[in-house]
Amino acid sequence: MNMSRARERLVVIGGDAAGMSAASQARRLKGPDELEIVAFERGHFTSYSACGIPYWVGGDVTDRDRLIARTPEEHRARDIGLRLRTEVTELDLDGQRVRARDVDTGEESWTSYDQLVIATGARPIRPDMPGADAAGVHGVQTLDDGQALLDTLEGTRGRRAVVVGAGYIGVEMAEALINRGYDVTVVNRGSEPMSTLDPDMGCLVHEAMEGLGITMVNDAEVTKILTSEDGRVRAVVTQDREFPADVVVLGIGVRPETALAQAAGLPLGPHGGLLTDRSMRVRGHENIWAGGDCVEVLDLVSGQDRHIPLGTHANKHGQVIGTNIGGGYATFPGVVGTAVSKVCDLEIARTGLREKDAHRVGLRFESVTIESTSRAGYYPNASPMTVKMLAEHRTGRLLGVQIVGREGAGKRVDIAAVALTAGMTAEQMTTLDLGYAPPFSPVWDPVLVAARKAAAKVLGSL
Amino acid sequence: MNMSRARERLVVIGGDAAGMSAASQARRLKGPDELEIVAFERGHFTSYSACGIPYWVGGDVTDRDRLIARTPEEHRARDIGLRLRTEVTELDLDGQRVRARDVDTGEESWTSYDQLVIATGARPIRPDMPGADAAGVHGVQTLDDGQALLDTLEGTRGRRAVVVGAGYIGVEMAEALINRGYDVTVVNRGSEPMSTLDPDMGCLVHEAMEGLGITMVNDAEVTKILTSEDGRVRAVVTQDREFPADVVVLGIGVRPETALAQAAGLPLGPHGGLLTDRSMRVRGHENIWAGGDCVEVLDLVSGQDRHIPLGTHANKHGQVIGTNIGGGYATFPGVVGTAVSKVCDLEIARTGLREKDAHRVGLRFESVTIESTSRAGYYPNASPMTVKMLAEHRTGRLLGVQIVGREGAGKRVDIAAVALTAGMTAEQMTTLDLGYAPPFSPVWDPVLVAARKAAAKVLGSL
Repeated sequence: MNMSRARERLVVIGGDAAGMSAASQARRLKGPDELEIVAFERGHFTSYSACGIPYWVGGDVTDRDRLIARTPEEHRARDIGLRLRTEVTELDLDGQRVRARDVDTGEESWTSYDQLVIATGARPIRPDMPGADAAGVHGVQTLDDGQALLDTLEGTRGRRAVVVGAGYIGVEMAEALINRGYDVTVVNRGSEPMSTLDPDMGCLVHEAMEGLGITMVNDAEVTKILTSEDGRVRAVVTQDREFPADVVVLGIGVRPETALAQAAGLPLGPHGGLLTDRSMRVRGHENIWAGGDCVEVLDLVSGQDRHIPLGTHANKHGQVIGTNIGGGYATFPGVVGTAVSKVCDLEIARTGLREKDAHRVGLRFESVTIESTSRAGYYPNASPMTVKMLAEHRTGRLLGVQIVGREGAGKRVDIAAVALTAGMTAEQMTTLDLGYAPPFSPVWDPVLVAARKAAAKVLGSL
Repeated sequence: MNMSRARERLVVIGGDAAGMSAASQARRLKGPDELEIVAFERGHFTSYSACGIPYWVGGDVTDRDRLIARTPEEHRARDIGLRLRTEVTELDLDGQRVRARDVDTGEESWTSYDQLVIATGARPIRPDMPGADAAGVHGVQTLDDGQALLDTLEGTRGRRAVVVGAGYIGVEMAEALINRGYDVTVVNRGSEPMSTLDPDMGCLVHEAMEGLGITMVNDAEVTKILTSEDGRVRAVVTQDREFPADVVVLGIGVRPETALAQAAGLPLGPHGGLLTDRSMRVRGHENIWAGGDCVEVLDLVSGQDRHIPLGTHANKHGQVIGTNIGGGYATFPGVVGTAVSKVCDLEIARTGLREKDAHRVGLRFESVTIESTSRAGYYPNASPMTVKMLAEHRTGRLLGVQIVGREGAGKRVDIAAVALTAGMTAEQMTTLDLGYAPPFSPVWDPVLVAARKAAAKVLGSL
């Protein structure tokens, strides 16, 4: 069948979720006689769960290797030519080749490609301030970062931890450090933690975290990090206070790692991520694909490009890319902005637009917030849950949902995520046939209670 | 404003979920000067959770009154003229009136109506066999039934319980009796428990229940119940065996309670339930409404009428009826057949069509079953979960999902329930933006894993 076709070479840059999913799926569809696959990874690991690092640091996951979904050896056994500790330093689009450098030896060489997958991920934002590189100051982006932090924790007698940033990484690391027995202070630039929520919902997270014994400091800008004579961190300084610290964790977000792509002239979006079409092909480039934390994705609710670094998207991107390279056809239509997290037993979830997102894209909306419970009120361990829902003014189209509660709160956001994807109105949601039994839900699921209230408000405003 | 309109009278037959939700919602929209409301209830209670009875019997809920969402006094305080222990014995449609009988005094009287709500519920199927009415043989349809069973349990020294039927009530009562320390045998007519699942999924429930120490007897037809000399139950007899029993619980389903409606010539469907339009108006009758366990509902997946007695539907029906009577406009479009249950820590959920349902309505389909986990595999307490998905042959339209697992399995069915409502295909589901973080889900949610496999099978069969 393939007599007339030469063997193609696929080059993958980046050995984590998106890159190796693409490689694996392409391999599933095309054998080594049809497709050679070469993957470059500058670190030591492949296909690991960066999202799992806080739970490893916190002690819930005791073995680092459990975070690795597929080892280099497993990839190689599937005829994927994996080159670890090898960094790609240049893309030559005209020559269809990449230059790679062995991190240990410094040796460089060119590799040509027929198909190229860019999966270079994201890099953590490191604040440009004095002391940011001091010993005891850690990011938690890679397994190496996680190990370094654990080494610091084991080697430090002090129990004062400062977490800079109160987004997903920040709150998860606060939990991890509380679980390790630290006195934890979270220093947060915003008015409330979890800026992916509206402030009224973030306030619930704030209160719950204080209830866990975490010191929350909002509206605080870190200006410098003080070190002691031995070069170790000793305090975090904000515009008006100083917080003694034996260890500092930076969780202030990431940016797409697209320096290579930018140098090669590939199209970048407003957030610095690569722009692709729905098949995850880099716009305007027939044989170049990109996925994972280095791309921007279409927000299906706002119609705008967003940068959402999240393992689940990266895996889907890789699957889509691999299918397309393998001769199938698949698309990634976009996201609705679903995210879920927890800090101890507090569950935090969101999907769609916040109030400020809706304002920004010029949507008028009605907003409602309701209190309900995870189970029938009379059932043991029914726990309170707050659901906020935004629906478009007049049309009633669902725009977003935020949920804060205990067990059973987080994954309830999936109901709204599917409804958003389907373009449902709040009114349509009121009759959704959701699973009901007393151990699982009140007779009106909390999401339905919110939908009823939102639908009524939309109707009342016509 | 209402000067020219006479005060109308709404008569409600049945004081549980559908009837009292309708009354309450109508009252919210129309004050007593506009609308008089009279509600007849033949029992002692209003607005209670029949679904909660197994948990009360099992001891999870210690106070019966916690199952009562709203007491008669609370209804009366909202100007709802509630007549307890009063049974409606006749509908006179031409005369627009109902005849009611005081259960205690036997006194009868006629009450005229402008609007009528029929919410007569369902009656348990009592097998027509010797011994079915013996002391120690119990149904669990009403709070009075629950109390009678509890009285029997307290007054009985023996610890052998036989549950007849292995549907929702059967498995929930098996759990309740296990929790009370009984030796429990479940005698089931079907080849596997939970006939609302396909047998291959019911088999998982069977194995798990046996693992809990419950004796499961399938393919067993109860032929009689043996009593001792004092008239108390002593054994349940099937076609080929005899099971000693100190207490017997019947959980063999319910039928719509529509004798009144039938006698009055109102339209009934194939399952004996009242037929309504989407506004819950009885077909062909402008001012008669019906909801809850006495109606049939449209199955949005098969396009057929079904009888699904479930509190969550009853509440929605009541809400819709009350809104319409109150001068608003609301509809109940139908159901997709979602149900969730548990037996100890085993969670069981389903939505949409089983294989035999799809065959019955002449749909060709692809079926897949996958194994996954509730959380990231490396996260503590990640528990196994089996997801079965049916998608229509060629089109790939989602037809149904069944899930059996532990914590986190049950409510995952909501993802599929919303997708079914929206008419999504398995392929569209593969890119759903569901909540992901290691404590909540693997990077590919189990429902997405099933969708991927189903989409691939549909594609492969084109």
